[in-house]
Amino acid sequence: MLYPIILSGGFGGRLWPTSRTHRPKQFIPLISEKTLLQETLIRLAGLKNLGSPTFITNVRHRFIVAEQVRAIDLQPRRIYLEPVGRNTAPAIAISAFDIVENHEDGLLLVLPSDHVILNIRSFHKAIREATVLANHDYLVTFGILPTAPKTGYGYIQQGELLKNGTQGKGYQVAAFVEKPNRHTAQKYVESKNYLWNSGIFMFKASRYLEELKAHAPAVYEASQKAYQQARQDVDFMWLDEDLFSQSPDLSIDYAIMEKTSQAAVVPVDMGWSDVGSWGALWEVVNKDIHGNAALGNVYMKEVSNCYIRSDKEIVAALGIDGLIVIDTDDALLIAHMDKEQEVKDVFKRLM
Amino acid sequence: MLYPIILSGGFGGRLWPTSRTHRPKQFIPLISEKTLLQETLIRLAGLKNLGSPTFITNVRHRFIVAEQVRAIDLQPRRIYLEPVGRNTAPAIAISAFDIVENHEDGLLLVLPSDHVILNIRSFHKAIREATVLANHDYLVTFGILPTAPKTGYGYIQQGELLKNGTQGKGYQVAAFVEKPNRHTAQKYVESKNYLWNSGIFMFKASRYLEELKAHAPAVYEASQKAYQQARQDVDFMWLDEDLFSQSPDLSIDYAIMEKTSQAAVVPVDMGWSDVGSWGALWEVVNKDIHGNAALGNVYMKEVSNCYIRSDKEIVAALGIDGLIVIDTDDALLIAHMDKEQEVKDVFKRLM
Repeated sequence: MLYPIILSGGFGGRLWPTSRTHRPKQFIPLISEKTLLQETLIRLAGLKNLGSPTFITNVRHRFIVAEQVRAIDLQPRRIYLEPVGRNTAPAIAISAFDIVENHEDGLLLVLPSDHVILNIRSFHKAIREATVLANHDYLVTFGILPTAPKTGYGYIQQGELLKNGTQGKGYQVAAFVEKPNRHTAQKYVESKNYLWNSGIFMFKASRYLEELKAHAPAVYEASQKAYQQARQDVDFMWLDEDLFSQSPDLSIDYAIMEKTSQAAVVPVDMGWSDVGSWGALWEVVNKDIHGNAALGNVYMKEVSNCYIRSDKEIVAALGIDGLIVIDTDDALLIAHMDKEQEVKDVFKRLM
Repeated sequence: MLYPIILSGGFGGRLWPTSRTHRPKQFIPLISEKTLLQETLIRLAGLKNLGSPTFITNVRHRFIVAEQVRAIDLQPRRIYLEPVGRNTAPAIAISAFDIVENHEDGLLLVLPSDHVILNIRSFHKAIREATVLANHDYLVTFGILPTAPKTGYGYIQQGELLKNGTQGKGYQVAAFVEKPNRHTAQKYVESKNYLWNSGIFMFKASRYLEELKAHAPAVYEASQKAYQQARQDVDFMWLDEDLFSQSPDLSIDYAIMEKTSQAAVVPVDMGWSDVGSWGALWEVVNKDIHGNAALGNVYMKEVSNCYIRSDKEIVAALGIDGLIVIDTDDALLIAHMDKEQEVKDVFKRLM
């Protein structure tokens, strides 16, 4: 059985002002009428041997998560509440302890809740391939075929094709590399030997815990205690703040994937974006022939390559190019696409 | 005595969305805490032999005019209400009939209510010079020394210096010319022989009516009847719609100034703008060292030559140049300065 683990603890500052501390981007309908969290769940429909989803979210977002899951008629397996953020390694560990205890051979499909995937057929195909590898004890990451020399993503250097005993079309991971500069990213893309690190993973829960114990024992121990002492009520699993806080703040990449000898990568081209910025969102949404995507009642003249979002009765855009315009009740952002990464700085200043 | 005639019948579409049909730009605090109408009145303080101001406004703006005058402790002489707009020639004619009947030798100082004048000392000096000329029966226009080859203004070709019997430093008007193209405007400015047509005038009320009768008799007759049949209540002078509508729609420039042989012009450099666009407003307001003028709580990074206006809790501008950003409750404008003239088209589409 495959158990989706939905990571929704993020705060999405780069999509300020639509995304806020009280409503991060995974809880907003950014590309359809459904929120990114709901889209994450909906796109799993049709997979075989799929268990109910487990959620890990910040305690303050518990009602949003619960309501958004309820609204699409899904029953969560469990919703774990983080009293503080400790990055992905402990969040996944909590889920892994839970799955191992209840479904010894269960596979985890770890999914960020704030990504866009346009090509669901390719996504499902990659999941099927990853399942074969994960059942052979590999820790599988999904590597996105890069479409441009992005500097905002981590990259995975693809190694040898895995053959022995597996049918999944996976590769060894030669190396994980941090976000590169423009020049290096260009070389990566040209080499056709590098993939974007999507943050989507699959492995046996038991294998994850073995690797975690070996490579990040402090995370393992703190997560184990927090899991064991979790307090269950009708709707939520409450993690104890003192116990959970003792875990180091570590990502799964850093704690495990870069260290294990059994990392595998499944390359996939599936119209993926982490929607890490307004520009990234602009790239994946439908645009008119001038490259504009406008939500709301927007009158445009001599406007190109813009992303405009407003609930105003009327927006008029005249003679602008390559701008992001985000208008909310209490805040307004006007940024050049080149400056989209700085939106997070504004968000931080305002927190 | 000098009687200010305040023309406030305009609708100011080029400053949409702040300026609206229900609140045109003369009624908005655009450059200070006072509205342009109030500033128009306040800057007359200190002039000698000044009568109370007469107002001509659209009927639907009567309470705004009355309240804004009251709020600065001024007593209007009269407030005439236009049932329909018929341009400046009949509006001034109504006032001229009124002044002539009550103050036979009265001079009219005709002032648009939506202009900016930063240098009041120069303005007053020009008024004193114009007074001398007007008392010698000239129809005086105020010509602004051009600071750039603007294509949005009409120009006045300056003729011979007027000497005979006058002390005012005025010139004959060689010609009025319509808004020129860029190339012609450049030649005008280089010639140092052309001035901007400010729309500010001074003349005896009786002389205006003489010239109007001679050059635009239909305006004269319709205005006379409308004046005679005006219905007075406590606060307002109501012009009859049937009578006033019979006047041709004519500007003072077209009806009189271009035709009279006694047009004179007083050149003046007084930090004037007709605030005919957001760009024109941006030019006259105080700016930071990057050329930005921002009203509201605006965070700017790598922003230059922008005019930003919003009541939002926060506005963030990142990496933009030469843009106008106007944010109101129900509308948002983002326009390049080059496209500022097209704002009026948006306004018209929305009417």
